[in-house]
Amino acid sequence: AEVSPGAEARVLVINTGGTIGMMYHDNVLSPEPNALVKALKKLPILHDELYTQQTRLYDHYGPSENTLVLPLSKQNKRIVYTVMEYSPLLDSCNMTTDDWASIGKDIEKNYEKYDGFVILHGTDTMAYTASALSFMCEHLGKPVILTGSQVPIYEMRNDGRDNLLGALLIAGQFVIPEVCLYFHHKLYRGNRVTKVDAGSFNAFSSPNLAPLANAEVDIKINWDTVWRANTTAKFTVSTEMNRNVGLLRLFPGITAETVRAFLQPPMEGIVLETYGSGNAPNNRPDLLAEFRKATERGVVIVNCTQCLRGSVTTSYATGKALCDAGLMPGCDMTPEAALSKLSYVLARKNLSLQQKKKMLSRNLRGEMIADLEGAKLTLSDS
Amino acid sequence: AEVSPGAEARVLVINTGGTIGMMYHDNVLSPEPNALVKALKKLPILHDELYTQQTRLYDHYGPSENTLVLPLSKQNKRIVYTVMEYSPLLDSCNMTTDDWASIGKDIEKNYEKYDGFVILHGTDTMAYTASALSFMCEHLGKPVILTGSQVPIYEMRNDGRDNLLGALLIAGQFVIPEVCLYFHHKLYRGNRVTKVDAGSFNAFSSPNLAPLANAEVDIKINWDTVWRANTTAKFTVSTEMNRNVGLLRLFPGITAETVRAFLQPPMEGIVLETYGSGNAPNNRPDLLAEFRKATERGVVIVNCTQCLRGSVTTSYATGKALCDAGLMPGCDMTPEAALSKLSYVLARKNLSLQQKKKMLSRNLRGEMIADLEGAKLTLSDS
Amino acid sequence: AEVSPGAEARVLVINTGGTIGMMYHDNVLSPEPNALVKALKKLPILHDELYTQQTRLYDHYGPSENTLVLPLSKQNKRIVYTVMEYSPLLDSCNMTTDDWASIGKDIEKNYEKYDGFVILHGTDTMAYTASALSFMCEHLGKPVILTGSQVPIYEMRNDGRDNLLGALLIAGQFVIPEVCLYFHHKLYRGNRVTKVDAGSFNAFSSPNLAPLANAEVDIKINWDTVWRANTTAKFTVSTEMNRNVGLLRLFPGITAETVRAFLQPPMEGIVLETYGSGNAPNNRPDLLAEFRKATERGVVIVNCTQCLRGSVTTSYATGKALCDAGLMPGCDMTPEAALSKLSYVLARKNLSLQQKKKMLSRNLRGEMIADLEGAKLTLSDS
Amino acid sequence: AEVSPGAEARVLVINTGGTIGMMYHDNVLSPEPNALVKALKKLPILHDELYTQQTRLYDHYGPSENTLVLPLSKQNKRIVYTVMEYSPLLDSCNMTTDDWASIGKDIEKNYEKYDGFVILHGTDTMAYTASALSFMCEHLGKPVILTGSQVPIYEMRNDGRDNLLGALLIAGQFVIPEVCLYFHHKLYRGNRVTKVDAGSFNAFSSPNLAPLANAEVDIKINWDTVWRANTTAKFTVSTEMNRNVGLLRLFPGITAETVRAFLQPPMEGIVLETYGSGNAPNNRPDLLAEFRKATERGVVIVNCTQCLRGSVTTSYATGKALCDAGLMPGCDMTPEAALSKLSYVLARKNLSLQQKKKMLSRNLRGEMIADLEGAKLTLSDS
Repeated sequence: AEVSPGAEARVLVINTGGTIGMMYHDNVLSPEPNALVKALKKLPILHDELYTQQTRLYDHYGPSENTLVLPLSKQNKRIVYTVMEYSPLLDSCNMTTDDWASIGKDIEKNYEKYDGFVILHGTDTMAYTASALSFMCEHLGKPVILTGSQVPIYEMRNDGRDNLLGALLIAGQFVIPEVCLYFHHKLYRGNRVTKVDAGSFNAFSSPNLAPLANAEVDIKINWDTVWRANTTAKFTVSTEMNRNVGLLRLFPGITAETVRAFLQPPMEGIVLETYGSGNAPNNRPDLLAEFRKATERGVVIVNCTQCLRGSVTTSYATGKALCDAGLMPGCDMTPEAALSKLSYVLARKNLSLQQKKKMLSRNLRGEMIADLEGAKLTLSDS
Repeated sequence: AEVSPGAEARVLVINTGGTIGMMYHDNVLSPEPNALVKALKKLPILHDELYTQQTRLYDHYGPSENTLVLPLSKQNKRIVYTVMEYSPLLDSCNMTTDDWASIGKDIEKNYEKYDGFVILHGTDTMAYTASALSFMCEHLGKPVILTGSQVPIYEMRNDGRDNLLGALLIAGQFVIPEVCLYFHHKLYRGNRVTKVDAGSFNAFSSPNLAPLANAEVDIKINWDTVWRANTTAKFTVSTEMNRNVGLLRLFPGITAETVRAFLQPPMEGIVLETYGSGNAPNNRPDLLAEFRKATERGVVIVNCTQCLRGSVTTSYATGKALCDAGLMPGCDMTPEAALSKLSYVLARKNLSLQQKKKMLSRNLRGEMIADLEGAKLTLSDS
Repeated sequence: AEVSPGAEARVLVINTGGTIGMMYHDNVLSPEPNALVKALKKLPILHDELYTQQTRLYDHYGPSENTLVLPLSKQNKRIVYTVMEYSPLLDSCNMTTDDWASIGKDIEKNYEKYDGFVILHGTDTMAYTASALSFMCEHLGKPVILTGSQVPIYEMRNDGRDNLLGALLIAGQFVIPEVCLYFHHKLYRGNRVTKVDAGSFNAFSSPNLAPLANAEVDIKINWDTVWRANTTAKFTVSTEMNRNVGLLRLFPGITAETVRAFLQPPMEGIVLETYGSGNAPNNRPDLLAEFRKATERGVVIVNCTQCLRGSVTTSYATGKALCDAGLMPGCDMTPEAALSKLSYVLARKNLSLQQKKKMLSRNLRGEMIADLEGAKLTLSDS
Repeated sequence: AEVSPGAEARVLVINTGGTIGMMYHDNVLSPEPNALVKALKKLPILHDELYTQQTRLYDHYGPSENTLVLPLSKQNKRIVYTVMEYSPLLDSCNMTTDDWASIGKDIEKNYEKYDGFVILHGTDTMAYTASALSFMCEHLGKPVILTGSQVPIYEMRNDGRDNLLGALLIAGQFVIPEVCLYFHHKLYRGNRVTKVDAGSFNAFSSPNLAPLANAEVDIKINWDTVWRANTTAKFTVSTEMNRNVGLLRLFPGITAETVRAFLQPPMEGIVLETYGSGNAPNNRPDLLAEFRKATERGVVIVNCTQCLRGSVTTSYATGKALCDAGLMPGCDMTPEAALSKLSYVLARKNLSLQQKKKMLSRNLRGEMIADLEGAKLTLSDS
């Protein structure tokens, strides 16, 4: 009997490494190459072998060794997914700007062929990579979803199966043209998340923006929150990132020497993690002088809060001092987003410093609410 | 007619500054000196003028200008509190190690005279100060409670009244011999908190330890969690703090130069905010070499996670690399607690480096769970 | 010197009773008449006596004994509020349909004179009253905000001051044309809340709808959620409520006798609190027969879930059985909202049973999402 | 080569039905008999076929058709589990007192042979069954864990696999001598839970008691909370339950007729869901008369709050009225626990009414904190 294949969607899974594909060796977890596809093929919820045979799937989609297919979804859709595994596999701690570029290039190369992209990645720097990719991917029109797990998929009890499955179903069925992060039943905007828990399945938080989707009994998309660029330009990936950027957290007693050392050339831009709503000491002329000297020689300093939630405003005398020293307000960006935005903008060689600063102050990919003051005028009472 | 004064408790309020006592000047908030006591005297819930007259309170307790008394509590207790105001009042961003010492010394000087202490403080660095005081106060036998507010007590709608009132009631009525932080109806251990929200009344979180008390309809103390040193030694305040300490947060692409510059003399100890469960790149021999060189010349590096919740363990290859480079595990300490513990321990001049490291690895004031491995053996499955 | 009064808004406070105005007598709380205004006048955050004198406020607004004025708000507004106290004051447990009508009538009588209305009410049945008023108030164009407290305003530590103040500021400054409930810094739609905690300041929850506003450091209105009827008809209060309605919660082993007794005349409509997504036994022909007999003789039965969160659907065989027995789906209404909607609709004497059922199935005041099925088609995956 | 079997634990899985084992027929979910074991055998995380062959498992444990074995756990343990499937499988809405007795009897019959018990059950009445079993199981010394799911285990994305796996691992490896409920990574005391969400994986809440265990990256048991009866008596199951019990929720306008009808013979005991901290109208002599008449003729009425969280106290005049009418305080019991405790106690034929009431007022299985007043004296301030 003939089998009707139904609607198929194609997803490219780029396996960069991370806990999801690790195994224990001498009580220490490390990436295990060439093992993931084999393991997935044994899990009936992640691969329907019978379907591949009945539809002669591999006649259409090429070699079988890394292409799998999900069981039929509720919407009568078949997600056919192909796993591209990086070699070597990386612990995400070891991820660099070059690796971000590789991922970006692989998305670009395969952009037309697939309906969506899933990036398997370690959780430790997943928020940094998600932020960076969100800026590198220009005029994105398809979902790019990072995911991974806290416990390897080879363990009996793990969160990797559910995370991978949820990411595949969303990437293959919903047109959410953003770089996202999917974890523990929630889809977040990639440049809004931060890792908040080292030991729980619910590892990520998007402190200043509600999730884009919840996937519990049903998958519910909050379409109002989904970001849509008003452009029809062609998708490109900009892999140029300026590496002379850094992240400095204020603390009581920080010395001017430390700040000077941190800001010394070749540093071109830093994210300063300040207190509360963007505050720093205003009784420390030595510190402020270091910031001013740096901004005067062209170093860009973005002011972000070290609080998990909140936004940089200018209601305090101690916040005003930083403004006067030439710092730019980072609004409600996470440090991860601010750092990668800085790296992305400072790499635009054709822009003047003023143009770069203007670009930094704009909301490029939904990474911040830029116009807080305007919003406050109408909405707040006290 | 005679008035029976009932049981009285005395609390010293040290007003160091902060939003709770700020006013707007040209749309910017700054501290307002000599205004708090006057304002409190007008609030019947924070001062019972009639009682002071009927009991001739000021005959006993000296000049009236800075001593107030709460209405009778449910337990038939009168909290008599004296406000000592610092001059100048400080925005907490401007707080330094010297200011911590001043607070400590003022507690020491007045220790016998009062049943408890409330420190009014800005929220921005309150978690740093609470951590520092927890180590500086040795053999503490009375409550020391930091509090403040997100909105000035002079505003119509504010959180200052409730925070001050709750702190006074706990400081005057419960023997919780810890440095604590009280905010938004919760009492936390001071060296366990971090400021997590720049724009909400619920500004603090104690991510790895449940609150010591909840004060909603009733004040409920979680006595099991209250820390009790097993010592009867005399209370002293150790104001020696080593200022050559720092806080460095890892990020992808951090350069060896940045790390070297940060670790250069006179730096003696740093808290390294690593990824996840204490991980750092193990494919970056340049970085690891900088860490190793520093530890070899005696710099102490404590490994804490940049995640809000969680603890540093050694299950990943990338975490083991740091161990090999001489870093000490910071367990589940907040960066604020780790930094001030480091500052406190490195100031012990009579200790060898080994003794300092041993002291750092011990749980001194309930700031961490040191023996996670032991705990895991019996409690965990996978 | 002349004092410019600035923009004034007028709010009517209807004090029906409740904990907010109770005092202890013999260790038992009961309402205290004629005490609230006196207490409020002593609280500078709730009354600015100087302003009343400088502006000769009482020359404009009549007798002074029950009119107060808040300090100037951030928006340069003066909220002048008049307290109308019911006699006797009621514990909200004792509130009846007649009391709802009194409140409604008082709003109607004073509708033109005031910009907003605050109803002080005990917390125990506040969700029932808020639901009932939401239906009784037709074509409402001004805010009606119920509030109260868990601890009397006469106690030292209480939530009454903040609740009253927040309700007044919203009622006087924002055009939210809904019956709302304000508690613990949140404004909820009145027919969406339920009391979930008997012993915490955070006593209410709106399980199926996000709050309309948050009032922490700033007052932030979620304007997208605010309900706006598309009508310009004149405001009226319909006090006709059918009292022959009831609330029956299913439990395993419930007998057909119990159900029959509950449904017997004069009962005209009940809310049946079923399991999960609207399920009931389908192997109990005796029970189902009782339901069918009742619906056949014209009793209206609305199916609501006994779960705090969720909606009644028809995906289970056990849910379908109830549909077949003539029950109407209550969607995601709270039992409180469903009961008062039933009482409101069944009192429409000019409507046929079919018209009443149609009215019940419509979303009248934002009390439910009626078209869940439609929503699901586009948004859900599995 | 020889295979060492390692430590084995045996768990009996009693599959009573529920969503976990349902399939869609005509867009409606209903139980699917004889399908679960076959499905589990195909899931490598829930069955290790190789191990059964290498160890000749079925030579020891009898027929293979319903015995499975988990992969090796982290503690080097093998959980061998046998599935006993009820026929017919039940939607939990259809569960009756007789079904509770069947489950109890099956536990009793197999008590010696197994180390722990897992009950698969629909979520709709799982909290009722868990409560009932907690009382029926006397002197329990082994874990009995109810679980199920919101989405069938046959669906691609479901919560059934994780729930079953977690329940098996805890039942086989930890001596928690309680009737528990495991759901969404948490283990709760069975008589403390209630279903709070009809549409989320996180469907249950234990509002007045913290979970017994969390099973995320690790399984962490809160041993301090685990209930331990101070008895060494032999385990028995008491299947006698009095069915003449009911659950009545107060609402404004409830008529005396409704109450009388509900309380009429053969009713022997009811749980009255009152307002807030146990309040009811005290201005309704007609209602109170009905309660008093019922209690005087021997009907037991237990006063529980209709709030999710909280406890019944006697601080309000409206609460005192119920006490005077002969109602018993239900403290912080859920309605589910109170109803099944009533059913259990009223079935003790050898006890007098006074003895039954005394038994009801005691904490039998950790279902309530009985001595709230005592607790409050030491812990609360206001």
